[in-house]
Amino acid sequence: MRALYLDKALRLETNYPTPTSPPGEALIRVRQAGICNTDLELVKGYMSFKGVPGHEFVGVVEQADGRPDLIGQRVAGEINAARGQCETCRAGRPTHCPHRTTLGIDRRDGTFADYLTLPFENLHPLPDSISDDQAVFVEPLAAACEILQQVHIHPIDRVVVIGDGKLGLLCAQVLALTGCHLTVLGRHAAKLSILEKLGLATTTDTGAFEPASIDLVVEATGTPGGWEMARRLVRPRGTIVLKSTYHGDLTVNLTMVVVDEVRLVGSRCGPFEPAIRLLANKQIEVEALIQARYTLDEGLAAFERAAARGTLKVLVLMH
Amino acid sequence: MRALYLDKALRLETNYPTPTSPPGEALIRVRQAGICNTDLELVKGYMSFKGVPGHEFVGVVEQADGRPDLIGQRVAGEINAARGQCETCRAGRPTHCPHRTTLGIDRRDGTFADYLTLPFENLHPLPDSISDDQAVFVEPLAAACEILQQVHIHPIDRVVVIGDGKLGLLCAQVLALTGCHLTVLGRHAAKLSILEKLGLATTTDTGAFEPASIDLVVEATGTPGGWEMARRLVRPRGTIVLKSTYHGDLTVNLTMVVVDEVRLVGSRCGPFEPAIRLLANKQIEVEALIQARYTLDEGLAAFERAAARGTLKVLVLMH
Repeated sequence: MRALYLDKALRLETNYPTPTSPPGEALIRVRQAGICNTDLELVKGYMSFKGVPGHEFVGVVEQADGRPDLIGQRVAGEINAARGQCETCRAGRPTHCPHRTTLGIDRRDGTFADYLTLPFENLHPLPDSISDDQAVFVEPLAAACEILQQVHIHPIDRVVVIGDGKLGLLCAQVLALTGCHLTVLGRHAAKLSILEKLGLATTTDTGAFEPASIDLVVEATGTPGGWEMARRLVRPRGTIVLKSTYHGDLTVNLTMVVVDEVRLVGSRCGPFEPAIRLLANKQIEVEALIQARYTLDEGLAAFERAAARGTLKVLVLMH
Repeated sequence: MRALYLDKALRLETNYPTPTSPPGEALIRVRQAGICNTDLELVKGYMSFKGVPGHEFVGVVEQADGRPDLIGQRVAGEINAARGQCETCRAGRPTHCPHRTTLGIDRRDGTFADYLTLPFENLHPLPDSISDDQAVFVEPLAAACEILQQVHIHPIDRVVVIGDGKLGLLCAQVLALTGCHLTVLGRHAAKLSILEKLGLATTTDTGAFEPASIDLVVEATGTPGGWEMARRLVRPRGTIVLKSTYHGDLTVNLTMVVVDEVRLVGSRCGPFEPAIRLLANKQIEVEALIQARYTLDEGLAAFERAAARGTLKVLVLMH
């Protein structure tokens, strides 16, 4: 089969071995997949990943030994493959299983290929009301929903999302569902206009907020500047949700965290079911986030485009 | 009156002006006061504080215009003096009032003097069942109770307190009240033996725990090593309570916080009422933490003793 293969550099393989699904896993023909910032980081060396990257996809189940009901289903898939036996899994935290592999990120080939495999329990059949384009956003939208899973956001809370990248735009839309007083602080008028059209408040003015006035800040830039801004805006006893990973270590004033009794919450993968419901109910706009489409054969060009500053979602089409 | 006065260096003043209580504040004759690590930091230059340090005390109200019921009462006192009018105060967070002064820490003379003043609403009359020695611990014990105010600790949680200093020993005793599976990681057998005598589990072995196995870690050392240990021990989706301030900035791996979805909670001053109840009910042992007593005239020697490595609580007696 065809696959984008990463081994220090990314290359297109036209004769990569088609995977055979181990017991408990389904073989899925990938229809299309999205390029995430994590994929770009992998190409730069993050996680020292060797294999097929990609973890945002929609596909159709072709084989599923013992689960004939899955055959032919169009699915999105959770990316953490746990075996469900260890203490962490039994405690209800399979996405943190220390033995897990992660689709296209850690010891498991990912989505930029004609086929992938995933455990049955990772698969979520999609209703017809969700298009393939929308379905690729189920995974990042689930990550945005994780904020609501972790933090109780009150309708009267003042909330700021820092960052107008792909994840920032999804987080903002999810947070707006709570009725909270939300503003998105970004740098790109074009990206912010997507939210403006949805009626959300945005600004590019870093001086637009009183220091120490915001109940909840979502840091979605993964930059030291984003962290500093979050720290400056959050009120005493407020919450900072860290939604992006950072390059290397950060220099942090933890004394301020103690004195102001701030709460930091790291946030990663989230629940798929609500993401699918929100898309099916047209409560989240994702198609406006699509900036370009490439075929798998043009995969290297797709990655190049995605890596260009300010690019939103780039899709790779297998079929 | 007599007072220990800090202006870059600490000195004993024998003719310091006795304060007059402004409207809404009581004049309190201090009976005794405890030296806290924060006081030692102030002497080293923290907060650039100039005035009388000290914020852990027991005293007797001598004047209280408009509140005759307070006269003669033996009291402990909350250290943050807010005026109660601003948005933060009205939101129920007076200890974070941006206009607050803080007893012996920020623009308000403190306890190492014959007299101090505090607003009426900061005062907590003490039952006779609490001795003067115990009463000096109401303030730090309240800070330990703040952890329970901020985090829901389940009886089945695995909890580690890092640090066997004064605050660590109080936090450990408060956490043990929840029935949780608690271990205190310290460096000083003599201090840990205070907890051992109370039936609490302690260790000096930094290898005693599985990495990523602890539900809640309380970092009570204020050192980079303490932070690193907390980060190593906390499980995915676990909580680190930061109970001590740090010298300068820290280098922190925030990506680990995101990937493991760890929650950091800064924790400072706490509620006095539960601290008083716990002492009155003999649920917390504090007298074993008293290491030495000095008169106010010997105040400089008291600070010297308190600053010696491994010293627990040093009391200064005014009467």
